[in-house]
Amino acid sequence: MPHINDSYLYLQGSYLFSNIEKRVSAYKEAHPSAEVISLGIGDVTRPLIPAAVSAMHRAVDELAREETFRGYGPWRGYPFLIDAIIENDYKPLGIDFDKDEVFISDGAKCDTGNFQEILSASCTVAVTDPVYPVYVDSNVMAGRSGRYDPSTIRYEGIVYLPCTAENGFAPGLPGQKVDIIYLCSPNNPTGTTLTRDQLAVWVDFARATGAVILFDAAYEAFITQPGIPHSIYEIDGAREVAVEFRSFSKTAGFTGLRCAYTVVPKGVGGVSAGGERVSLNALWSRRHTTKFNGVSYVTQRAAEAVYTPEGKAQVKERVDYYLENARIIRETLASQGYTTHGGVNSPYIWLRTPQGMNSWGFFDTLLEELNIVGTPGSGFGACGEGYFRLTGFGSRENTLLAAERIKKWQI
Amino acid sequence: MPHINDSYLYLQGSYLFSNIEKRVSAYKEAHPSAEVISLGIGDVTRPLIPAAVSAMHRAVDELAREETFRGYGPWRGYPFLIDAIIENDYKPLGIDFDKDEVFISDGAKCDTGNFQEILSASCTVAVTDPVYPVYVDSNVMAGRSGRYDPSTIRYEGIVYLPCTAENGFAPGLPGQKVDIIYLCSPNNPTGTTLTRDQLAVWVDFARATGAVILFDAAYEAFITQPGIPHSIYEIDGAREVAVEFRSFSKTAGFTGLRCAYTVVPKGVGGVSAGGERVSLNALWSRRHTTKFNGVSYVTQRAAEAVYTPEGKAQVKERVDYYLENARIIRETLASQGYTTHGGVNSPYIWLRTPQGMNSWGFFDTLLEELNIVGTPGSGFGACGEGYFRLTGFGSRENTLLAAERIKKWQI
Repeated sequence: MPHINDSYLYLQGSYLFSNIEKRVSAYKEAHPSAEVISLGIGDVTRPLIPAAVSAMHRAVDELAREETFRGYGPWRGYPFLIDAIIENDYKPLGIDFDKDEVFISDGAKCDTGNFQEILSASCTVAVTDPVYPVYVDSNVMAGRSGRYDPSTIRYEGIVYLPCTAENGFAPGLPGQKVDIIYLCSPNNPTGTTLTRDQLAVWVDFARATGAVILFDAAYEAFITQPGIPHSIYEIDGAREVAVEFRSFSKTAGFTGLRCAYTVVPKGVGGVSAGGERVSLNALWSRRHTTKFNGVSYVTQRAAEAVYTPEGKAQVKERVDYYLENARIIRETLASQGYTTHGGVNSPYIWLRTPQGMNSWGFFDTLLEELNIVGTPGSGFGACGEGYFRLTGFGSRENTLLAAERIKKWQI
Repeated sequence: MPHINDSYLYLQGSYLFSNIEKRVSAYKEAHPSAEVISLGIGDVTRPLIPAAVSAMHRAVDELAREETFRGYGPWRGYPFLIDAIIENDYKPLGIDFDKDEVFISDGAKCDTGNFQEILSASCTVAVTDPVYPVYVDSNVMAGRSGRYDPSTIRYEGIVYLPCTAENGFAPGLPGQKVDIIYLCSPNNPTGTTLTRDQLAVWVDFARATGAVILFDAAYEAFITQPGIPHSIYEIDGAREVAVEFRSFSKTAGFTGLRCAYTVVPKGVGGVSAGGERVSLNALWSRRHTTKFNGVSYVTQRAAEAVYTPEGKAQVKERVDYYLENARIIRETLASQGYTTHGGVNSPYIWLRTPQGMNSWGFFDTLLEELNIVGTPGSGFGACGEGYFRLTGFGSRENTLLAAERIKKWQI
């Protein structure tokens, strides 16, 4: 038998969300009449926006006719979509990119998972704690960690930056040299955002120490308060050190359609063993053309429609809907004495578990007593222990039902 | 700046097809009135089959309504599609699989490129020569090769198995221990197929020596002659040593929709550094759930429709159309004295360049004199030098036009 990638054996159990799925399935099987409400995985529930629906029908009809049929698209994505992204997501912020600095992909999860591959296996990785598990797991798979230490609930060799109520969930700079820094704002799972000043500290740090920032802005559309940066490129110097990941999943309802994009400015460099500067844009382009073959044309037309006036209005309606859900959950929890964070510029509410319960204990209790599914904070890291994530992505009906159950609950 | 993955620097120039694209674009720019016919990249030209078109419209409408909306699908793909695959692609061959042995993905290119990642970087890789470049490039990126040697047109550390007219394009067994073997039948680029006996030799070899076979069957639907295996699992023992990749791209016209699947039987194992047996199915599942997030629901419904009675008839019509194109090209070339291979159970014709021209020289000549784009054989490896690939994927009109130009040509 061939030798396997032994780094995979360091990985702990299943991926968080498949683990939750298994527990929920088991519960439902044992209690077939239970009306289980999922406020767990960050999946949308509102139908696809009408602008995208129309665009997809048109695109399908194009593929049905010989004169308008399209096969393989451009590897980095169709120019019509890349143009729409630059025009609508960046130019209003005073930021411009060349077309070949934007890469269309089938998901921010895929891109945040795969991007590390173009960097050396010897790079030191810094992540926040709690953290979206894909950042860590993909680096463990690539051999950038040591073993998992159950006593610390952490992998050796990864630099964890605690995000706690004490520091307002803003990670402090690492006390050592790191090469790859993952930041996420609005944050998954804490639902908090980084200010302009906080981001500037990171950009300056990366420039001073030669690190690259992988900035996950998948929840950017949920920022409604003024003054909070929507893009890391609003910060001076970020174009030299930061890669930004965005997604159509949570805003326009694309979780099942698969479309995202990654910005890799040409100014972002890495260094070869021989000391040469190498453009990360060129490396990512090479990775993209070799191991990826583009996003469905039909999906790319749907994404383009997100930027039409109707599309924008419909996305805003969806975002407002989910934010209202988040408000309902947040205020319900607060009225019951829970301590909550996030849920304002984010669909995620990060709550302290009551009575010092641990996260999985609260998961089981909530599932069994209220038939509500959430995500255990400890699934996102050691600092998530004692926390729990709920999302505003349910339907209004289910959100109100969940709120009612929480209000009546005597834990 | 962070250190990069230096293995990327071993890669030669651009990916073959982007290289071709660049040359063709430059030619078109210089000669805007030229009617360039592409028989180069293996991209389909017939419209999407009507069964898939209807299924996609229905799926889009489902996503447009709250009651039927679907967000994230199951990571490994929807059971409706996995069931259809097992029922239609395998059971008629007397082969059965568990649902969790089949993984739906967004492309055979992606899967053949990514699969190596679950195996050790120390594994020795064997590929045929000529070879689909993704197999080699993805392993170079993973550090399984030494440097590229321009004198041999090969990477050090990769085991190349020559496929020549002399051995009927059937690779002979390697003279050394190898761990990962890539086979492709019907072959891209040579258009030839491996017989049952030839495949059995490889399965026996893999079992005897502890190798894994990565079997690319993306062109399986083009097999029309009896007796040629459609799946490696028709060979006894293959379930212990082989992974099979298939695609909807070339049959149902899905190159722009992105859908493929990979079969990883639970019997296929690898070994850890500690000597433990590890299921490759479990490792691939872990990779899939961490770095991938499923295929568009709309695309999966289109793929399901491929297996309806109408879908099957429509796919057969498409395959017959492309095979007829291949016959036209093959016979035209033969009538002009060219030596050709393939093009019978495959859309690809592999021809000897005339007058001892090298492959890129013939590419330029064909582009400039006949305005026909093909693929230089040398782009697929050292043994491809002096060969050239044409495809039956053009429209009938363009194929006939190309045939006319070839007939009148005095090279």
